[in-house]
Amino acid sequence: MIKKPLILVTNDDGIFAPGIYALWEAMKSIGEVFIVAPDTEKSAVGHAITISDPIRVQKIKRKNGFEGFAVNGTPADCVKIAVGALMDQKPDIVISGINSGANVGTSLMYSGTVSAATEGTILNIPSVAISLDSLTTLDYRFATKVAATIVNSVMQNGLPKGTLLNVNVPAVTESLIKGYKITRQGELHYLEGFDRREDPRGRVYYWMTGQIIEPVGNADTDSHALSKNWISVTPVHYRLTNDEFVEVLKTWDLP
Amino acid sequence: MIKKPLILVTNDDGIFAPGIYALWEAMKSIGEVFIVAPDTEKSAVGHAITISDPIRVQKIKRKNGFEGFAVNGTPADCVKIAVGALMDQKPDIVISGINSGANVGTSLMYSGTVSAATEGTILNIPSVAISLDSLTTLDYRFATKVAATIVNSVMQNGLPKGTLLNVNVPAVTESLIKGYKITRQGELHYLEGFDRREDPRGRVYYWMTGQIIEPVGNADTDSHALSKNWISVTPVHYRLTNDEFVEVLKTWDLP
Repeated sequence: MIKKPLILVTNDDGIFAPGIYALWEAMKSIGEVFIVAPDTEKSAVGHAITISDPIRVQKIKRKNGFEGFAVNGTPADCVKIAVGALMDQKPDIVISGINSGANVGTSLMYSGTVSAATEGTILNIPSVAISLDSLTTLDYRFATKVAATIVNSVMQNGLPKGTLLNVNVPAVTESLIKGYKITRQGELHYLEGFDRREDPRGRVYYWMTGQIIEPVGNADTDSHALSKNWISVTPVHYRLTNDEFVEVLKTWDLP
Repeated sequence: MIKKPLILVTNDDGIFAPGIYALWEAMKSIGEVFIVAPDTEKSAVGHAITISDPIRVQKIKRKNGFEGFAVNGTPADCVKIAVGALMDQKPDIVISGINSGANVGTSLMYSGTVSAATEGTILNIPSVAISLDSLTTLDYRFATKVAATIVNSVMQNGLPKGTLLNVNVPAVTESLIKGYKITRQGELHYLEGFDRREDPRGRVYYWMTGQIIEPVGNADTDSHALSKNWISVTPVHYRLTNDEFVEVLKTWDLP
């Protein structure tokens, strides 16, 4: 008999978000769940950590026995402090989500959801980020089934050191879902605009706006699969050296 | 005759830091300089951007003609708003620094300095991050020479799409510097601890502490080169897919 896994659940939408509640519900049938999440929404925080300010931790209860810790920090902080201070033992898996909105293409760089999973991999814990491709739906039911399937698969198969799974679920009725597709990070990105305004005192400020640019890409990218109603599963790593270019750089005439 | 390049200078230590002043001095002998930097220190912010708050921009003057824009946002915000709203034309190069403290190994993930350069590469602008391996010295003179050499080399040779240069300079007297070494991102990382305290009202808070873990690595890593008084130059990219593992994942028994 296999021991029930210890599952660390976190997110970037905050501990009061519907997505983390749905994820908790799915995970508690698989293992022992420990929840540590930001006290407020922390989207687009990238892989930030809090080094100059004190970090506060507060016990939170929601309905039906949902209990966890709220942290006044980033998703990466949550994973660090969970493993470093709050948990008695290292979790068997970290799962971050269920995020409201897809995390594909270039937006992986900005994603708090993914950064929590990244922090898990840095701490040598198998880690998963999961997002639902809708900013409006509150129906996480199918995505929770996906979360359970993925976590069971990861517990069974393991992940290579330094690699997490980034999972994105289409927000359509289950009958329209085509299945799982192993994908690559695509080149979808945002073309930012800045909306310039003046406040009542005449001081200038800007709002960042954005327009999605979807390059005509290969069928194996995350965003393409998602748009065709596949559940995309991308293995993400952080070996950031451009190895091919190392040899070119050596030919540069540096003193 | 080559047109003088338009150079966007930014950092994460803030527009009033000594490192950006030194960098400005070095860059103005090479080209036209445009400065956009955070209004306060933004270390360890990772690749965060500001999407939910208004972004304010303020003109700043320091001594000797240093003029720039201070932004109440992250380093990535600075590059976005510089290119998207403040500059009349796209810069020929983005340079971020000179950071106080090295950015090597796993800390690349958390680095605001590197994230500004990352944002430059996302916008298809050749980009460089430069850091001095000292948290205390104010002597940026040798590092500014390195910055000038690297910028001239990048303008001459170009960089591949999506790849930036991450440069780290030892904080030793110039005569001890061995030269430039093309390196890879190493595995230096921090083992975090959390210092638990109670405030005067009895509420618990934590300080994140850290201890550097330096794996016995190859001689070609950034941190190893730096420790031996080489200037490390690592080409960094953001193709985050673990391509090898894609094939393994396809063999998983997902429904």
